[in-house]
Amino acid sequence: MSEKSFSLQELAKLVEGVVVGDSNVLISGFAPLETATTGDISFLVKAGRAGILSDFKGSAVIVPMAVEEADVPLIRVNDPYLASARIHTLLLDKPFQAQGVHERAWVGKETIIPEQITVAPLASIGERVKLGERVTIGAGVVVGDDVEIGDDTILKANVTIADGSLIGKRVTIHSGTVIGSDGYGYATDSKGFHIKRPQVGIVRIDDDVEIGANACVDRAAYGVTWIKSGAKIDNLVQVAHNVVIGENSLIVSQVGISGSTTLGRNVVLGGQVGVTGHITLGDGVMVGAQGGVHNNQEAGAKVGGSPALPMKQYVRAAIQYGKLPEMGRDLRKLKKEVAILTAEKE
Amino acid sequence: MSEKSFSLQELAKLVEGVVVGDSNVLISGFAPLETATTGDISFLVKAGRAGILSDFKGSAVIVPMAVEEADVPLIRVNDPYLASARIHTLLLDKPFQAQGVHERAWVGKETIIPEQITVAPLASIGERVKLGERVTIGAGVVVGDDVEIGDDTILKANVTIADGSLIGKRVTIHSGTVIGSDGYGYATDSKGFHIKRPQVGIVRIDDDVEIGANACVDRAAYGVTWIKSGAKIDNLVQVAHNVVIGENSLIVSQVGISGSTTLGRNVVLGGQVGVTGHITLGDGVMVGAQGGVHNNQEAGAKVGGSPALPMKQYVRAAIQYGKLPEMGRDLRKLKKEVAILTAEKE
Amino acid sequence: MSEKSFSLQELAKLVEGVVVGDSNVLISGFAPLETATTGDISFLVKAGRAGILSDFKGSAVIVPMAVEEADVPLIRVNDPYLASARIHTLLLDKPFQAQGVHERAWVGKETIIPEQITVAPLASIGERVKLGERVTIGAGVVVGDDVEIGDDTILKANVTIADGSLIGKRVTIHSGTVIGSDGYGYATDSKGFHIKRPQVGIVRIDDDVEIGANACVDRAAYGVTWIKSGAKIDNLVQVAHNVVIGENSLIVSQVGISGSTTLGRNVVLGGQVGVTGHITLGDGVMVGAQGGVHNNQEAGAKVGGSPALPMKQYVRAAIQYGKLPEMGRDLRKLKKEVAILTAEKE
Repeated sequence: MSEKSFSLQELAKLVEGVVVGDSNVLISGFAPLETATTGDISFLVKAGRAGILSDFKGSAVIVPMAVEEADVPLIRVNDPYLASARIHTLLLDKPFQAQGVHERAWVGKETIIPEQITVAPLASIGERVKLGERVTIGAGVVVGDDVEIGDDTILKANVTIADGSLIGKRVTIHSGTVIGSDGYGYATDSKGFHIKRPQVGIVRIDDDVEIGANACVDRAAYGVTWIKSGAKIDNLVQVAHNVVIGENSLIVSQVGISGSTTLGRNVVLGGQVGVTGHITLGDGVMVGAQGGVHNNQEAGAKVGGSPALPMKQYVRAAIQYGKLPEMGRDLRKLKKEVAILTAEKE
Repeated sequence: MSEKSFSLQELAKLVEGVVVGDSNVLISGFAPLETATTGDISFLVKAGRAGILSDFKGSAVIVPMAVEEADVPLIRVNDPYLASARIHTLLLDKPFQAQGVHERAWVGKETIIPEQITVAPLASIGERVKLGERVTIGAGVVVGDDVEIGDDTILKANVTIADGSLIGKRVTIHSGTVIGSDGYGYATDSKGFHIKRPQVGIVRIDDDVEIGANACVDRAAYGVTWIKSGAKIDNLVQVAHNVVIGENSLIVSQVGISGSTTLGRNVVLGGQVGVTGHITLGDGVMVGAQGGVHNNQEAGAKVGGSPALPMKQYVRAAIQYGKLPEMGRDLRKLKKEVAILTAEKE
Repeated sequence: MSEKSFSLQELAKLVEGVVVGDSNVLISGFAPLETATTGDISFLVKAGRAGILSDFKGSAVIVPMAVEEADVPLIRVNDPYLASARIHTLLLDKPFQAQGVHERAWVGKETIIPEQITVAPLASIGERVKLGERVTIGAGVVVGDDVEIGDDTILKANVTIADGSLIGKRVTIHSGTVIGSDGYGYATDSKGFHIKRPQVGIVRIDDDVEIGANACVDRAAYGVTWIKSGAKIDNLVQVAHNVVIGENSLIVSQVGISGSTTLGRNVVLGGQVGVTGHITLGDGVMVGAQGGVHNNQEAGAKVGGSPALPMKQYVRAAIQYGKLPEMGRDLRKLKKEVAILTAEKE
């Protein structure tokens, strides 16, 4: 656990919060409300649950502004969820401890290894690779030739980075993920055989991107498949060739994005969403889980369902869907009644 | 193949079956009805297909109780499918053959290696790891620091077990699967940047669990992501942080379970199902393939569709869905007819 | 880049095209229309866009027959997309450069290593493996015992090939993919415990198959899981035990095919499709993205939706689905109106 400690005042300053109670209390750890002990700070998201603070055994709590006082020291903030992420991160932060290149790792020729680096056993790094400062390469990682990796980036165990990929700074890629596999592109001849189209582009991943486990980002056919800064991609996501994912977009687990599709900034794709190829989703587009998007979406659009509809329409349609058997019965009955009425009229 | 042999009587006892014919016939192998030869036992699931036994070339057949006799020795049982699984497993069973730690594997300091163990080439085991007896670690496996692995557990090639994971006894994890990757948790600031919430919990996997290939089980934000004993998880499944999967649950391929959701015992999720976060599925809940579950489900509930409906309602709605174009036409026609009737009335 | 060069006439012959302009111009590279320079050939798919050829800076362009002349040398063909794939491949083609078995790779006993082979660092090859000529084994790859791999096959970094798998010639398998993991098969006893059914079959992959990254192909329970020649499988696809995939089928990303299902030749499954077990899809069946197929499909069938409907019916139903809220309102209104008409009549 953390050995550093901070005064409550220092932490409050970090998150633009207001201290209530002893601002000199020392905080060295972070824990949930239920399990915190002396030295720990916790957080409370909903003011309505403030009653549970009376049982609190830790040293301070981050609370929403609506909580004005309690028997424990507080930091009042606008967004306790956000503030606690910042404070917890600070408490866990420790200086990079370079362990060098392990004797059981392999490094190809003309690859530059900075002094401050950790390469774990049984990692393999190709030729002419450029590694930034304080990079961490996990065990079993394979980095291809001509890859560039920026400062402070972490590749977890068994990640694969194929030839020519460009990875930014402070990127984290989790285990099993593959960056730079070939895109899926074939031309079919008159006999039904598929001729592979060479995939000669690369993958570019910008700063502060995080990619989960067992995800795939294919290299471009030409040019780049590009994941822009701050985007966060969950496990088992498929990013096809020539896709562009905008800054700070959130791509939840098991999403598939087809080739040459472009996502704007702060797009949110829910779990298991599928997006077809060669379309554009504007800034801030949100797609509900399991949605299927086949058309361009304007900035700010919220859609759901497959094929996707505007979210409000989708929600109403989905409710009505459950009534389809009843609707069918009603319709059959109406047809009979109207037929009788029409017949009698004549 | 197996070199052991058992009398038909011994095998019948294992599965609480009734022998018909020579109970001393020796069985040393297991094969499908069509390819069995002398020494092999086969199984027949449906009594109605008993006619094919006349062409049988093996030594005995496991049959349902409804088959009372045949020209070959039989074991009559209530569930031939289950009995054949037990007998086949017995015939294949062989004592663990410890191959030790391969010279090309890496083991960190303070890790305890029992005498009866196999660690394949190019596996990497971290520091302070506790390995049970008769554990098998495949080639390319990476086990992080402070992991515990119980007796008789098998990690297939290229599995990744991240720091601090607790793995029970008789667990099998297939290739490419990642245990203990970070959960997907961010807090978003006022500018749209996502601040990572530290993921400081662990994964706990209990005894007799099996997990397929290229699956992901994320570590908890705090506490544990927990897969309870006897659960069987298929390939490419996503288990998010703080999920709990109950005893003997079956999670079929490509399912995604979102964060903090709890599944009871003997839950069955069909292929490609998605389950939203922070909900509870009671014991024995069944979700049909490609379903999307957004709400708590009571024990024993059977649901399908996305969003999920009670299974019977879903099946009827899905049938009616195909009739939607016809319903639309009928409705337009009725509107006209009723408009005419109403107009004429006035 | 390529150092070879070909005359335009040579390239035209390869693709059965007609040269317009200087047939002796030398071509050594391939580039998109916008970035081509001297020595490069490009391609134009749509005749209607031929106007952009006036800005072309490269040496020649592959065009559809409808383009009859331009200021640059042309190859006129029936299918520029196909022709460009062939020509680009030829330009990139280079002789296999054997690098031998890296000193940091491991090879088990009784494995035959041909002279023309490349095995990268930290790859592990089992015992009694048969490797063809000009095979490339990437870093971190694990090949199990008794595997056979045909000539010119490429296993990218961190691929896993389990024991007994048979891989054909000119096969490419991308990083993280697992071939030969156990099928998902259990028999459940009266107490709800699942007894594993031994999975003793193998995987067979025929010539010219390509499989993307982080895909899974399970071994058969008995017999073979079989991917026939020329099939192309995208990333994160699940192929369950005893599945048969016919020649030249296209299986797009994140598809799941359940156990014992058989696909004919040139079947196309769109992204995220699910196919249930024990069914047959005839030659040329096409399933739209996110479809769910539960029944046999005749050769040439085109289906979509979940559960799948004939494609035309599905498209109409999906459009009507968006109108469900309106239909519900109309229906309620009609019921009232008809009730009034009926009441007034009496």
